[in-house]
Amino acid sequence: MSETPTVFELHPQLRKDCQVIGRFSLCQLLLMGDAHYPWFILVPQRQAVSEIFELDWEDQVQLLRESSGLARALTRAFNPDKLNIAALGNVVPQLHVHHIVRYRDDVAWPAPVWGRSPARPYSEAERTALLARLTPLLAADLVLERPEG
Amino acid sequence: MSETPTVFELHPQLRKDCQVIGRFSLCQLLLMGDAHYPWFILVPQRQAVSEIFELDWEDQVQLLRESSGLARALTRAFNPDKLNIAALGNVVPQLHVHHIVRYRDDVAWPAPVWGRSPARPYSEAERTALLARLTPLLAADLVLERPEG
Repeated sequence: MSETPTVFELHPQLRKDCQVIGRFSLCQLLLMGDAHYPWFILVPQRQAVSEIFELDWEDQVQLLRESSGLARALTRAFNPDKLNIAALGNVVPQLHVHHIVRYRDDVAWPAPVWGRSPARPYSEAERTALLARLTPLLAADLVLERPEG
Repeated sequence: MSETPTVFELHPQLRKDCQVIGRFSLCQLLLMGDAHYPWFILVPQRQAVSEIFELDWEDQVQLLRESSGLARALTRAFNPDKLNIAALGNVVPQLHVHHIVRYRDDVAWPAPVWGRSPARPYSEAERTALLARLTPLLAADLVLERPEG
């Protein structure tokens, strides 16, 4: 008898494209490796879920709580012209919710970011500076990932 | 002294691009006038709100309830390969949440739909058939808009 795996595993494509920043009570917080935009992703640590409505209601409310907490922190940290929040998943079926800080002078504005410009990798200094602005605002709820190595 | 308007008004661009199908307790349900995809939009009937986290927490939870109810109904009605759910708002700042039924053989797959193909208007028969599949599944929560004229 096969069983649904109970241990959460991040989809390989998300692992390849993103850095794990830390964990809220439900979601992993990822930073997309594209320095064009402050672009974060929440991934509920639940196996075999592709749509928000497939989560238990309690998990849905927790996802909303973490999403809105992240959105509020992104607004304080980066003063965006707009946030783009989206659960698409046409390419990576594992449920993940984009949270992207948009500015009127960014490279894709006013279009959505997907498929616009090739990703620009962060320098170590850029990434450190970016995270230093955001993570203190999330400190009460976020367990930071330990650096590898 | 100017006051924030207390009566909700749908943004003119949404009024132009969409048809109002009905009202949930918080949101208006719109059908986007693009027959390439079953594409619906929820608009919370609150003035001067651009981001989900700006709603009162109670309204946020109600938006989630209406969004997940709609997503479940879209899944039953149209058997999508994926739903795309997104709050973007780069062009229309009034908070609105896209709910788009995606298929692997639709004109934009796997890209997001925005800015891909010029909208294809519905025929009256197509729109009637589409809504006849969806609205009975929402009947308990949705007050249908009366036809104009």
